[in-house]
Amino acid sequence: MEALLTELRAALDGAVLTDPDVTYPYRHDMMPLAPHDQPLAVVLPTSTEQVQAVVRACGAHGVPIVPRGAGSGLSGAANAVAGCVVLVTTKMNHVLEVDPDNRLAVVEPGVVNLDLRDAVEKHGLFYPPDPSSYDWCTIGGNLATNAGGLCCVKYGVTTDSVLGLEVVLASGELLRTGRRTVKGVAGYDLTKLFVGSEGTLGVITRATLALRPLPQAPATLVASFDRTADAGAAVARVVREGVVPSLMEIMDRASIEAVERYLKTDLNADEALLVCQSDAGGEVARRELAVVEQVCVDAGASLTYVTEDLAEGRDLLTARRSVLTALEVYGAWLTDDVCVPRTRIAELITGCERISADVGLRIAVVGHAGDGNMHPTIVYDPSSAAEFDRARRAFDEILALGLALGGTITGEHGVGKIKREWLAKEIGPVGLRVHREIKHALDPTGLFNPGSMFA
Amino acid sequence: MEALLTELRAALDGAVLTDPDVTYPYRHDMMPLAPHDQPLAVVLPTSTEQVQAVVRACGAHGVPIVPRGAGSGLSGAANAVAGCVVLVTTKMNHVLEVDPDNRLAVVEPGVVNLDLRDAVEKHGLFYPPDPSSYDWCTIGGNLATNAGGLCCVKYGVTTDSVLGLEVVLASGELLRTGRRTVKGVAGYDLTKLFVGSEGTLGVITRATLALRPLPQAPATLVASFDRTADAGAAVARVVREGVVPSLMEIMDRASIEAVERYLKTDLNADEALLVCQSDAGGEVARRELAVVEQVCVDAGASLTYVTEDLAEGRDLLTARRSVLTALEVYGAWLTDDVCVPRTRIAELITGCERISADVGLRIAVVGHAGDGNMHPTIVYDPSSAAEFDRARRAFDEILALGLALGGTITGEHGVGKIKREWLAKEIGPVGLRVHREIKHALDPTGLFNPGSMFA
Repeated sequence: MEALLTELRAALDGAVLTDPDVTYPYRHDMMPLAPHDQPLAVVLPTSTEQVQAVVRACGAHGVPIVPRGAGSGLSGAANAVAGCVVLVTTKMNHVLEVDPDNRLAVVEPGVVNLDLRDAVEKHGLFYPPDPSSYDWCTIGGNLATNAGGLCCVKYGVTTDSVLGLEVVLASGELLRTGRRTVKGVAGYDLTKLFVGSEGTLGVITRATLALRPLPQAPATLVASFDRTADAGAAVARVVREGVVPSLMEIMDRASIEAVERYLKTDLNADEALLVCQSDAGGEVARRELAVVEQVCVDAGASLTYVTEDLAEGRDLLTARRSVLTALEVYGAWLTDDVCVPRTRIAELITGCERISADVGLRIAVVGHAGDGNMHPTIVYDPSSAAEFDRARRAFDEILALGLALGGTITGEHGVGKIKREWLAKEIGPVGLRVHREIKHALDPTGLFNPGSMFA
Repeated sequence: MEALLTELRAALDGAVLTDPDVTYPYRHDMMPLAPHDQPLAVVLPTSTEQVQAVVRACGAHGVPIVPRGAGSGLSGAANAVAGCVVLVTTKMNHVLEVDPDNRLAVVEPGVVNLDLRDAVEKHGLFYPPDPSSYDWCTIGGNLATNAGGLCCVKYGVTTDSVLGLEVVLASGELLRTGRRTVKGVAGYDLTKLFVGSEGTLGVITRATLALRPLPQAPATLVASFDRTADAGAAVARVVREGVVPSLMEIMDRASIEAVERYLKTDLNADEALLVCQSDAGGEVARRELAVVEQVCVDAGASLTYVTEDLAEGRDLLTARRSVLTALEVYGAWLTDDVCVPRTRIAELITGCERISADVGLRIAVVGHAGDGNMHPTIVYDPSSAAEFDRARRAFDEILALGLALGGTITGEHGVGKIKREWLAKEIGPVGLRVHREIKHALDPTGLFNPGSMFA
């Protein structure tokens, strides 16, 4: 493989890392369950041409490529396999263009989500997708996983904000998909095929993203419930009432406790807390939240509170966003990601309580109630192999529960290297065969991210 | 082929049409330019199982299948090729389920768009995609072409309203894509790959569609301009101001004249007319339209008028929706479909005036200004071969103009059998090769809709 390393060094002005101590942090993402191994090298290209050179060289030598952004993923999709080249896009981090008159931006894949948000906000514009890791995850990773976030209930997921891509194919050729216009149906929708393909079909080197007008400052509602089922019923009823909040999150008792301890605050919450925002502005926001408040009261909320104070709203969101970090006071966390029909949220939460009791581990349920995407998070002692095994068992039982409730095994984190068998269960043999056929058509030698998504 | 016909008759309880007089209307859609030929047979299955039987039988006999809905298409994608079997989905026309609590509907492909709209409106819900032919086109055709309409500026195109599909593959097997949940990233986005694939990859037999809350009754604004360029500038400025109307249509002088003659009314319009609606309701709608009105006045509108009267708003929309029919007083029409960046609309309109003068034919420009999707419509005498040739030349020159302005050759009508060479120009050789690879992976023998989209 020395010949390959020589070629890579020549193509990348020496920016090829091979020292195992230096490449160590590039071996895995944030998912502790997923397998990972020692790469041959880590490369950090700075241009599309360099990416093409890497792909061609690795193709010629039969060495697999694992594309990777910041490594904030939660499925092991960016984890190294033995002897691979990890292709890191973080040095391709330029916002190339912001076009306010056509409401679009053109970016390189290594741009951090928050940096893009800041760059377009200056123009009164808004890039909706906001995964929890928005202050360090990259757009390239967001595209590869079709990332979601708190905004999705109103603004959709990443794929809903992408107009076009530039992708380096397994042949090293450059494919341009999509367009710069709002609409377009010329040919197959290759853009949305690559979005969410987890680096298995090519390397995204550029994206044209659709922007929205910056919404109004949000008004915020919180509602506390004595019974989790009542909070779930309130969510379904909000949907039924035709309200589309800009955010609607749920935290269960375990999440509330962890956050109260971590932030040293009192959330005044009982068994379950709903946090809901409207960014419709003024009278309309007030009307929307009044409907949500009435629904919560009717569903049995023990307390509701509405504020138009931005700082107060931000604090409440900080509480929601702190759950995973807060859980670290109890041990390591392992977060799951199922999405169920919005009418089944309460059943998911009570099912997780049952699983928690079964395995004897704390499971905190937090999630995007507005679209049914829940993140039951298992807390375990990483030094105990037995606890780790039980955590894995709980993780799988939550997936089975999600499927049984008519849901999916992943709402936004992806399949990666931890849910391959579950993907096969969800989509069945015909679906799996179609996946393999498409993969084989675009990447016949299995150059990109082998072993991710499906075997 | 008698053996195939016998198999089809057995599978379809005799519902197999072969008499050329009877099959004649199934030979083509609404695009006069596209080639079409005599099918071997036309079949009208009533179930997924019957579709599977047709696909298996045709596959075994090597006879191609052209899937078709109501035939309202404008690209020849549903046109018969010689000796094919036309598979018509109009008898699979049941709304199988409306689930208000999860805001979704499950439908068969032959459901007429308007029938679905009516079925969900009873539940206070809204299915946005509204192609001009919404009162007779089918959801299956909408899915196959990724149809748009007047709603797209705010609510997106068909693909934005699809959660999952059931598709009969070339093998006759049934593929289920997507899910019933709002979010989901389990595997490749096969749903959005089939949407807009124009019947070249499989036959859609069922769809799970996302619904929205029924919007408020719309308020309507019209603005008349002495200069087309001013109307174009106003559109770009509305985008810049961060307003997202629920509809923003443009009509040029030729469209206005035709409609005034056809409807025997006076639209009080000069060179160009903008029609804009807000369905945000009450104060917000008034505020949005006030911004649009101010923008129009600043851009040089000679007249603006705002109304909250529903009947008046409906009349104005009827004028817009009547353009194609109205043009028939002058001859046959041939409508094009380019989408350009919203800042280039005025250039497209003035370019069409130039092309009109060049070829000596009336070209009316009408379109969805809010998303840059314009339908320059060429009027010609169908009894004159020379005029038909000039119409075809104008059609192609408009496509070249759209591409030169940074746009796409089709915003919502599709490629079909009339824009194959233009697709190749737009996406280039690498894009075309990827299309062929995906087609070959899913339909290796070329069973479905041969010669559509690409050769």
